Amino acid sequence: MARQTAQAAVALGGGHGLFATLSALRRLHDDLTIDDLTAVVTVADNGGSSGRLRGEFGVLPPGDLRMALAALCGDDEWGRTWTDVLQHRFAGDGEMNGHVVGNLLIVGLWELMGDHVRALDWVGRLLGAHGRVLPMATTPMDITARVRGAEAGRPDVVSVVRGQVEVATTEGHIESVALVPEDPQACQEAVEAILAAEWVVLGPGSWFSSVIPHLMVPGLRRALAETAGRLVVVLNLEAQAGETTGFGPEDHLDVLFEHAPDLTVHAVLVDASLLAASEVGGRGRLERVVAGHGARLVVEDIAVPGEPRHDPARLAEAFRRIVDEG
Amino acid sequence: MARQTAQAAVALGGGHGLFATLSALRRLHDDLTIDDLTAVVTVADNGGSSGRLRGEFGVLPPGDLRMALAALCGDDEWGRTWTDVLQHRFAGDGEMNGHVVGNLLIVGLWELMGDHVRALDWVGRLLGAHGRVLPMATTPMDITARVRGAEAGRPDVVSVVRGQVEVATTEGHIESVALVPEDPQACQEAVEAILAAEWVVLGPGSWFSSVIPHLMVPGLRRALAETAGRLVVVLNLEAQAGETTGFGPEDHLDVLFEHAPDLTVHAVLVDASLLAASEVGGRGRLERVVAGHGARLVVEDIAVPGEPRHDPARLAEAFRRIVDEG
Repeated sequence: MARQTAQAAVALGGGHGLFATLSALRRLHDDLTIDDLTAVVTVADNGGSSGRLRGEFGVLPPGDLRMALAALCGDDEWGRTWTDVLQHRFAGDGEMNGHVVGNLLIVGLWELMGDHVRALDWVGRLLGAHGRVLPMATTPMDITARVRGAEAGRPDVVSVVRGQVEVATTEGHIESVALVPEDPQACQEAVEAILAAEWVVLGPGSWFSSVIPHLMVPGLRRALAETAGRLVVVLNLEAQAGETTGFGPEDHLDVLFEHAPDLTVHAVLVDASLLAASEVGGRGRLERVVAGHGARLVVEDIAVPGEPRHDPARLAEAFRRIVDEG
Repeated sequence: MARQTAQAAVALGGGHGLFATLSALRRLHDDLTIDDLTAVVTVADNGGSSGRLRGEFGVLPPGDLRMALAALCGDDEWGRTWTDVLQHRFAGDGEMNGHVVGNLLIVGLWELMGDHVRALDWVGRLLGAHGRVLPMATTPMDITARVRGAEAGRPDVVSVVRGQVEVATTEGHIESVALVPEDPQACQEAVEAILAAEWVVLGPGSWFSSVIPHLMVPGLRRALAETAGRLVVVLNLEAQAGETTGFGPEDHLDVLFEHAPDLTVHAVLVDASLLAASEVGGRGRLERVVAGHGARLVVEDIAVPGEPRHDPARLAEAFRRIVDEG
């Protein structure tokens, strides 16, 4: 089959989920199926090294940006060495404990250049990155969640939980999330990349704290609604203790559309194991929910066998089939 | 005049003095007068960002190594940008205050690679460095000084002061310095570079805390005594408040030879202003002291006019004449 003209892709997410997507998409970039790859990364993290740096310097939390850059690093000795250095986390018991070298380098570049995007492009050049990494917005923000039963012994009371760490680990049932500030300025380069892309991938990842926040940035959500690019939603392999306890695949889709009813989804990609394990109707029910939103369900083996994480090679093959089928 | 075959040079020192020497020597490297340039750097610093990292991780203090690398950085946009990043010092009032990005990067590389020299070579590659930067020894150490009058009101009492910062800022008169441990292992690559060099430059810099420590490392001192390379000593432009208060140029030479009587010095390079200002016999006396050690005195205008710092371009011209005259 003749290869189509190369196409542009944007992946939105954060943390390990985005790392998996990018590890897969870079394979399509390497063989020129995708000729332009952009990651758009959540910037609401308030924990760990990122949270400390954000607190000290008022900058964007760098950790998820650093991980996305690492996923795209060059696969020669140069790229791998600098990625290992940037991913190195200081041990010991002093003031540097838990900080990550790349986070410090990124914050240094931000301070020096005063320009988030330019600084990240420089880190990308250092790593020989196969694509570009952008923040979803250019100011740090917090996630808040309306949570039912967050307070011990009061299962029906809805309260507001603030902070990515707090949302990701809440004991209650999350009803919705929002951002503070409510209408952060989207990163302009991210908006442009989404509008120009043939393919946009959302998920997998911590659903309420890494995936849905993208839909809460007005400029990004507008771009996602307006782009001619086809949106592929990749569902998680399992519910996440805390923020999505007890969620089935349909529930993930439901909350996505509750937060962004105007979204047009081209395909929903799920791992085959998810259907086998589904307690609530199996493939038939999920297909109906997906079709109800005008999308098509794509079921593939995309997990590492026996482990709750995506396999980059299998995920790449699944993306390749979706792109080839158009 | 036909250019001689290119030659190897090693510069020993630390801090701003070594930065000046390297800024000059790299010009001789750029035009191929010197085809192999190595910096050998003191590793006894116990202050500031370096002191904190040394205390937390038990590694070499990275600051002077970083500064030497910065002096050798590539002069294109890539080299200048990464040098600016590595030289960036965090402000603010949190835990990162005063830390320097490059120090953290170097410590990260050390932790990751477990090999000081290999890690520094990687930073050199990052900066496109015009030469190699090595530590004088591969274990951190302390400087101690026998100081007369360090204790207030007891001008004749000799006491021992420990630590580079403490030695550099003592109120008393330093009689001698030593290292703890007494016989640190010299960096093998530094020993080899000295033995292979046609030219070895010692100084300028904080005399007791950055210059003389090189002579206290047994392996380095042996190499300096045995090398066929010609040793050029560059004297400071003025006495340094604290460690060399009241020192004239002859005093600098005297303490050098007291600490290393077996040293053969080819040339002593001084700024012309130093002789004009000398209160103790001017050029005649200094010439006699220099000649007494079998060296020749080279007097040049090598300072930034009106400022107590060396001018890299003038210093380069002075080195060039010394090398050309052989």
